[in-house]
Amino acid sequence: MLLGIDIGATKVALAVADDAGQIVARSRRPTGSTRRPADDVARITEAARALIAEVGTRAGALHAVGISVPGPLDARTGTVLRPPNLPSWDAVPLRAWVEEALEAPVRLENDANAAALAEWRFGAGRGVDDMLLLTMSTGVGAGLILGGRLHAGHFGTAGEVGHVPVEWGGEPCLCGLHGCLEAYTGGAAWTLRLRAITPADSRVCALAGGQDGITPEHLVAAAREGDAFAVGEMERWNEYLARAIVNLTMLLAPQVVVLGTIARAAGERLCLGPVRKRVAQQVWSHQAPTLRIVAAELGDELPYRAGIGVAMQGLAPA
Amino acid sequence: MLLGIDIGATKVALAVADDAGQIVARSRRPTGSTRRPADDVARITEAARALIAEVGTRAGALHAVGISVPGPLDARTGTVLRPPNLPSWDAVPLRAWVEEALEAPVRLENDANAAALAEWRFGAGRGVDDMLLLTMSTGVGAGLILGGRLHAGHFGTAGEVGHVPVEWGGEPCLCGLHGCLEAYTGGAAWTLRLRAITPADSRVCALAGGQDGITPEHLVAAAREGDAFAVGEMERWNEYLARAIVNLTMLLAPQVVVLGTIARAAGERLCLGPVRKRVAQQVWSHQAPTLRIVAAELGDELPYRAGIGVAMQGLAPA
Repeated sequence: MLLGIDIGATKVALAVADDAGQIVARSRRPTGSTRRPADDVARITEAARALIAEVGTRAGALHAVGISVPGPLDARTGTVLRPPNLPSWDAVPLRAWVEEALEAPVRLENDANAAALAEWRFGAGRGVDDMLLLTMSTGVGAGLILGGRLHAGHFGTAGEVGHVPVEWGGEPCLCGLHGCLEAYTGGAAWTLRLRAITPADSRVCALAGGQDGITPEHLVAAAREGDAFAVGEMERWNEYLARAIVNLTMLLAPQVVVLGTIARAAGERLCLGPVRKRVAQQVWSHQAPTLRIVAAELGDELPYRAGIGVAMQGLAPA
Repeated sequence: MLLGIDIGATKVALAVADDAGQIVARSRRPTGSTRRPADDVARITEAARALIAEVGTRAGALHAVGISVPGPLDARTGTVLRPPNLPSWDAVPLRAWVEEALEAPVRLENDANAAALAEWRFGAGRGVDDMLLLTMSTGVGAGLILGGRLHAGHFGTAGEVGHVPVEWGGEPCLCGLHGCLEAYTGGAAWTLRLRAITPADSRVCALAGGQDGITPEHLVAAAREGDAFAVGEMERWNEYLARAIVNLTMLLAPQVVVLGTIARAAGERLCLGPVRKRVAQQVWSHQAPTLRIVAAELGDELPYRAGIGVAMQGLAPA
């Protein structure tokens, strides 16, 4: 039996699965931080115990526990390092605490790596050895499945696709560097840009009830309706995303690039199709036909699958 | 016992080593293509048999044969696909031919991957799990050691660092794309540029005996003497190399980046020092101190070590 835990900014999703990843029980609760990380973690492990009891097993009998948690984290020590979305968590030894509470081996991954593992095991990357997942919500993250396993890099910091330069000496990024993908396609940066430059007569403003309320979702909705400004912004967004995929393709030769969040929401016509076209123009003619650029499949299932994907790592041959 | 074969444009280097990679015999001969690939390969396997006999063993007793060969190749089928440096070799089933002749399992890698394996086992990357090698001769290639093994990618085409864009919409590259690293730092492209733009009064021209004879070696020599034009060109070259390393660092988080050929020849003051500085300015402050950017160590030993590094792949746990 495996236990998966997905700790999000607002919700914690738990799942119990067999060793093949088939989910047999699940639950969900608000993250509702107490501002005391030890208490937060104790609540999560209590919920886990309850779920495990529900399927008639006990904590010590789990083969592996996988946890998906917002980064940054130190994967070697299993410590969570002050994620922006969990502000009171600073250097929380999550792995040690959960191992003690559940008496089972625990693996930790940041949410982008966990999403990549889940899409690889259960979603859009099933059956391939080389798959990259890009996720663009507030920030931009990636998980790299290379040669049939997660590549975490030195100190677990690989896959910082959000900070690959897509414009040399370009826009300042919140990270302090310039021209990062995240400065062009991250939800936070894009929201600021849209609020600053969206014309008052654009459909985007109407949908958002004014400039100050604009989010990328309004932009996508307006683009779907054909609003010229929104369509132009979407093209720009696609271009920068395509540049990052060109980099990834040249360096890593993936079979599948899985796009989540905004790209998934925007869909084929507004995002995936145009991105495929721009990538094909910037890689070699023999590369484009073998590279699949697809939307993430798991959607609402992702939180339950993410922790299970992480847990399964320990079971797979290295 | 292992056999390593390095097939270069002008020379074939052979080495026999024990299973730990310790070389016990070596030989070298001109490639001297007959324009009949089957005859070329027969000559190489004859030389291999002679070397093996020298150390008192026989072909069938080899645990593994590793071959380094100019790309492109199809690693799955062990076929060499018309390398520019071996023009008469077109779809040569090298692995099958050598396996038949030497009655031993054969592995094939392109020269950049083989160099990476050799520097990782025996040179500048010893003891680390994540190492990237960049080699800049006529073209620009790379070998990626990720998580303690070579990452070859889908169809073995990963590590095309030479065609990572370092200037969006930049100079045309011989590959047909624009702004590729190779268009700025590859020996072929750089030679063309230098012949076109070097001022007649530059020290570079004097060393080369005129513009038409200029090669990157003359540029490096003139820069070493302080020639202003040459120093400026070297700075430009370093900047583009640094951009590629920034990309690699964000995506792959290597511990060591090993630079061969021109960068190695240019050395600390003209290349490695300035490249480290430019990379440090374009990555996060916590990344730079843990990233080592160093020159390749093997030098003249590389051809003998390259094939052995490839052969050892088969012995290492996957």
